[in-house]
Amino acid sequence: MAGATFGSILTLSTFGESHGPAMGGILSGCPSGLSLDFEAINLELARRKPGQSAIVTQRKEPDQVRFLSGIYEGVTTGGPIGFVIENANQKSGDYDHLKSVYRPSHADYTYEKKYGHRDHRGGGRASARETVSWVVAGAIAKQIIPQVHIAAYVSAVGPYEFSGTVDQQGLKLVEQNILRAPNLDWAHEMEEFIKSVRKDGDTVGGVISCVASGVPLGWGSPIFDKLHANLGKAMLTINAVKGFEYGSGFAGAKMRGSAHNDLYTESGGTQTNNSGGIQGGISNGEPIFFRVAFKPVATLMQAQEVLDQEGNIKTQSGKGRHDPCVVPRAVPIVEAMTALVLADAYLLDRTTKI
Amino acid sequence: MAGATFGSILTLSTFGESHGPAMGGILSGCPSGLSLDFEAINLELARRKPGQSAIVTQRKEPDQVRFLSGIYEGVTTGGPIGFVIENANQKSGDYDHLKSVYRPSHADYTYEKKYGHRDHRGGGRASARETVSWVVAGAIAKQIIPQVHIAAYVSAVGPYEFSGTVDQQGLKLVEQNILRAPNLDWAHEMEEFIKSVRKDGDTVGGVISCVASGVPLGWGSPIFDKLHANLGKAMLTINAVKGFEYGSGFAGAKMRGSAHNDLYTESGGTQTNNSGGIQGGISNGEPIFFRVAFKPVATLMQAQEVLDQEGNIKTQSGKGRHDPCVVPRAVPIVEAMTALVLADAYLLDRTTKI
Amino acid sequence: MAGATFGSILTLSTFGESHGPAMGGILSGCPSGLSLDFEAINLELARRKPGQSAIVTQRKEPDQVRFLSGIYEGVTTGGPIGFVIENANQKSGDYDHLKSVYRPSHADYTYEKKYGHRDHRGGGRASARETVSWVVAGAIAKQIIPQVHIAAYVSAVGPYEFSGTVDQQGLKLVEQNILRAPNLDWAHEMEEFIKSVRKDGDTVGGVISCVASGVPLGWGSPIFDKLHANLGKAMLTINAVKGFEYGSGFAGAKMRGSAHNDLYTESGGTQTNNSGGIQGGISNGEPIFFRVAFKPVATLMQAQEVLDQEGNIKTQSGKGRHDPCVVPRAVPIVEAMTALVLADAYLLDRTTKI
Amino acid sequence: MAGATFGSILTLSTFGESHGPAMGGILSGCPSGLSLDFEAINLELARRKPGQSAIVTQRKEPDQVRFLSGIYEGVTTGGPIGFVIENANQKSGDYDHLKSVYRPSHADYTYEKKYGHRDHRGGGRASARETVSWVVAGAIAKQIIPQVHIAAYVSAVGPYEFSGTVDQQGLKLVEQNILRAPNLDWAHEMEEFIKSVRKDGDTVGGVISCVASGVPLGWGSPIFDKLHANLGKAMLTINAVKGFEYGSGFAGAKMRGSAHNDLYTESGGTQTNNSGGIQGGISNGEPIFFRVAFKPVATLMQAQEVLDQEGNIKTQSGKGRHDPCVVPRAVPIVEAMTALVLADAYLLDRTTKI
Repeated sequence: MAGATFGSILTLSTFGESHGPAMGGILSGCPSGLSLDFEAINLELARRKPGQSAIVTQRKEPDQVRFLSGIYEGVTTGGPIGFVIENANQKSGDYDHLKSVYRPSHADYTYEKKYGHRDHRGGGRASARETVSWVVAGAIAKQIIPQVHIAAYVSAVGPYEFSGTVDQQGLKLVEQNILRAPNLDWAHEMEEFIKSVRKDGDTVGGVISCVASGVPLGWGSPIFDKLHANLGKAMLTINAVKGFEYGSGFAGAKMRGSAHNDLYTESGGTQTNNSGGIQGGISNGEPIFFRVAFKPVATLMQAQEVLDQEGNIKTQSGKGRHDPCVVPRAVPIVEAMTALVLADAYLLDRTTKI
Repeated sequence: MAGATFGSILTLSTFGESHGPAMGGILSGCPSGLSLDFEAINLELARRKPGQSAIVTQRKEPDQVRFLSGIYEGVTTGGPIGFVIENANQKSGDYDHLKSVYRPSHADYTYEKKYGHRDHRGGGRASARETVSWVVAGAIAKQIIPQVHIAAYVSAVGPYEFSGTVDQQGLKLVEQNILRAPNLDWAHEMEEFIKSVRKDGDTVGGVISCVASGVPLGWGSPIFDKLHANLGKAMLTINAVKGFEYGSGFAGAKMRGSAHNDLYTESGGTQTNNSGGIQGGISNGEPIFFRVAFKPVATLMQAQEVLDQEGNIKTQSGKGRHDPCVVPRAVPIVEAMTALVLADAYLLDRTTKI
Repeated sequence: MAGATFGSILTLSTFGESHGPAMGGILSGCPSGLSLDFEAINLELARRKPGQSAIVTQRKEPDQVRFLSGIYEGVTTGGPIGFVIENANQKSGDYDHLKSVYRPSHADYTYEKKYGHRDHRGGGRASARETVSWVVAGAIAKQIIPQVHIAAYVSAVGPYEFSGTVDQQGLKLVEQNILRAPNLDWAHEMEEFIKSVRKDGDTVGGVISCVASGVPLGWGSPIFDKLHANLGKAMLTINAVKGFEYGSGFAGAKMRGSAHNDLYTESGGTQTNNSGGIQGGISNGEPIFFRVAFKPVATLMQAQEVLDQEGNIKTQSGKGRHDPCVVPRAVPIVEAMTALVLADAYLLDRTTKI
Repeated sequence: MAGATFGSILTLSTFGESHGPAMGGILSGCPSGLSLDFEAINLELARRKPGQSAIVTQRKEPDQVRFLSGIYEGVTTGGPIGFVIENANQKSGDYDHLKSVYRPSHADYTYEKKYGHRDHRGGGRASARETVSWVVAGAIAKQIIPQVHIAAYVSAVGPYEFSGTVDQQGLKLVEQNILRAPNLDWAHEMEEFIKSVRKDGDTVGGVISCVASGVPLGWGSPIFDKLHANLGKAMLTINAVKGFEYGSGFAGAKMRGSAHNDLYTESGGTQTNNSGGIQGGISNGEPIFFRVAFKPVATLMQAQEVLDQEGNIKTQSGKGRHDPCVVPRAVPIVEAMTALVLADAYLLDRTTKI
């Protein structure tokens, strides 16, 4: 059904609630004959994992993926890859206070009204724990398209936007700081800022930028599955995302055509990249570039008003273990969803010409 | 195949190139028993039509839709609604100069490299003429959900953002000015600005905002077809769109959670609407609100560099009849795609509960 | 939506009612660069056309297809191929007597109860006129896979089954007799039989067999889109079809494994073909072979009981121009649907290996 | 991707190889608020389980399903229902002799040639063990449509067709004999026959009939997802199935229209049911009736020729534990697939009218 599956050739279906027995999914359409690098998969899971640093949630989740099918002697068979990640560290008691109340800017209320019934523990199906399955699938997708290099990084935290240029050097720094920023000084500054926000019992939003280089000319579809539309949908699928722009984005809307157009080089490349690597929904061989806006986490460690099932407004403080700023941990998630979209576009492109 | 169809229950498939014989499509899944208001459909086509005013392209396209099926005695039968819009005013000669060149920031180059073959006339399949079919389908979709009122308007032109508040009064003004702005003074100012841009042989981008009110609580899906993700994909599907944000959007990324959270009223509404009417991918009963960034039109009426098939850079001026600023004519297109997404979500929601 | 589209990579969406303005469809996912043989398309339409001989309906339908997109200078562009076939010969008056009655074993009653509203003329959407669009699409699909030769023929009419062997010689005879049988003597006998049935104002069923040779090893999917399951669904989609069997079929159910198993030759072929060219849902390189059962046409030229909208049983005779036996004209339809399934499997197979 | 998922609103995706760690799947689109009867699910698993009687395989599989999501406090939440069935009893050593050979009329050869790589143990993905997941999903689907009663039974074994009438009384006998026949005498006779076949180291095919009563008028789609086409595809998806017919089926092809047409009763029912409960792809309120042909199991307990990877023909005997006749155990599988198709049609039908 709508909502059950992501992708067209390479498809991911998932299941799981944050405090149910396990998360998991099925990745179908992965070509046969791919020798999987399991260490690379585990590395992506480790990048997403809570409790990595002082500025993220201190929940402990082992996040060990167990592959159940589609792989034989380390090589993909072409069959569906089923996998499960057990939910080991469930402190469901942490959520008893939420059984009959709706937290502001959470999905509690809309889920309960739509479905008439919900698993309130830890957000249930609405929890960002869901993304653990995306990271597994994305780590495989990356291996389907080894020619492509996907690198996301934090480019803004709250009102502070990183103003420097991001080159290959900067991208290499991303995994060397807990903020996942392309500059160590700025990263340090932002960590201090996030700590101060947390001390206030508050949270803050941010922006992740992503570059996919090595995508050859020709991936994507012209009308209803434009490459950037699929990327945009993928990003807007991530919890807490409020906006997506590619290439010149919202800033491009302010420009004149004479300044915005990307003039060609003789080799068919472009001198500028306001197009963000995509023309008419199809990759043009330049790096694909986009930005993703995340709202501040809705769960606060300070008192705020909630609604209860009887229609009363109450005051309640957040409990449990939560991120004061979600962007550092969302970096591998952005990359995973990007990889799923690009690997799918790659496979579909194989059917283009006679 | 991927790219052929839009929607899940209510689906639109389209065909056509701007200088082929006709555009058209099939709208499937439209419920039976709907007495169609054909005047309303024609009105939407008229709103999209070129040549409406001094600030849009002067091409004349009659844009008469011919329905071929799915309607009997004015009422939908539940069968697929096939329709065709003939391409009456084809000045293909206008495009001879483009046969062997690739214009900057157009899809010419990516199409030819992907498919090895293209209809170069008027952009072929990449032309925004495609949107005429979306407007037909969207006008029907609006009638499936009469309780919903969708109103889009121009909120920025180039660097000039409309700074006032937009209320019901403002929304009523939108069809009273050729800019489709919610304020007549600002509209007049912007018209002058666009005329000056055109005089320079240049173009300029802009932003369209859209409000959908009357959407009841519960439409949308929690994970892979979040309501805002489907809206974002729909908007990114429109030609020239570079970005999408809903509710607080990119500005929300700068905020703290304590300021961003939308506190409830006792009736289950919210006091603010940073959520843009959607929580966890599901409508919450508040107005749905989003913004869409359009790049400046790539075709300039001034000399600029193009690439030819032999790899030479040449200088060429745009010919033909083009919009200096696309946003006024894109307003009904934004509404049409919004209507398709919402009517689809409405139908799918009927299958939710036992 | 479900029911709107056929296929996964190569997809066909259709529209039209037999007495509406036109039939038509969109074929998406056809690879670019295919030089279309339009004569071959027209030939298939001519094979399906009514009025070809004394044993089929005498309705005249010019059945001229007009291509609206996806083809430039005779070559496919990779874009959706839109096409329309006007309904030229509408004698809607022939159907006035059906407005308020439901004919036995027609879709009149189920359509009206499901949709609450129907176009009663000529069966509306339920008419086999729909298949004209399938034949257009199938004729293109055949050209996507020129290595494959698809040959269907009439193998039974009413109780008379053709008992001889069908070899290449027989297949060549099929277009040389109006029954489309692989043997001229038997064809002549059957024509006489059908004429006698028609003289009684009656109709009769029959069986079509189909062989697809040249399908290489490896097309199809293992579980939910087994090649024979997709073929079976395609055949059961054709009006009046009541059964499908492939390879040994229902007769195979009576056999022992020791007799049924197809032993290999050293080259990987098989000595027998009870498998019908498919193992585990995947083509094995042997000819694909299946049989399709058609019920007798429900419209009789003799008095029979019908139900009216007030719940009365009345007596009524069929009017209009109808086939006494549908199988001769269904031969190109069986081939068209087979071609759509196989070309789709071919394209999907391109995505199988890394 | 094609092949990954079954259904349109209610969708089942599965994974697993017979000798991998586990089988499992995700059932999406199940409405919320359904209080699941877990005993009924276990009962269906027990019906499918090997080792039930002397005429089926003696493999022991505990077949305990573990639900991982989509159910909270015993009630469906509307989220995807993930489930896993561990593969407890893997005697992989039983299959070492198959590593480099291809068994006749198995999927060994086509899988290896298509994918270049396979899990040879127990048939891998091609194993009928896959159906354990379908039975879990089908058992839930039955609970979505409690008004429908689905009853399958063995109606032929090898050359022996049950010739008596099958009434409600007969259907009640089905679970009282290990053959799952609607008549105890005939069941006993057939058991003896199957035992004699097994004694010969041979296998034999058979036919399963299925009746779905209580389906209201109006389920199904007119063109590309006709209810009987979806049922046919579902049946042809089951391992070893070679044919499908509904209502009068292949026998109907031999009849005249005057005898075949189902005349109405005044209440809108029909006096006969050659239509098999479906008209024009839509249920007509009469019992849905169809028959499914199963070939004899390909694995024999006698010496037969196999092909090895070097292209040599060798002689080999089957090892392991296999069914001499698959139809008794396939009865619950036929019912499960029927339930998935019907529940999906029921949900889709909710979107039909305005």
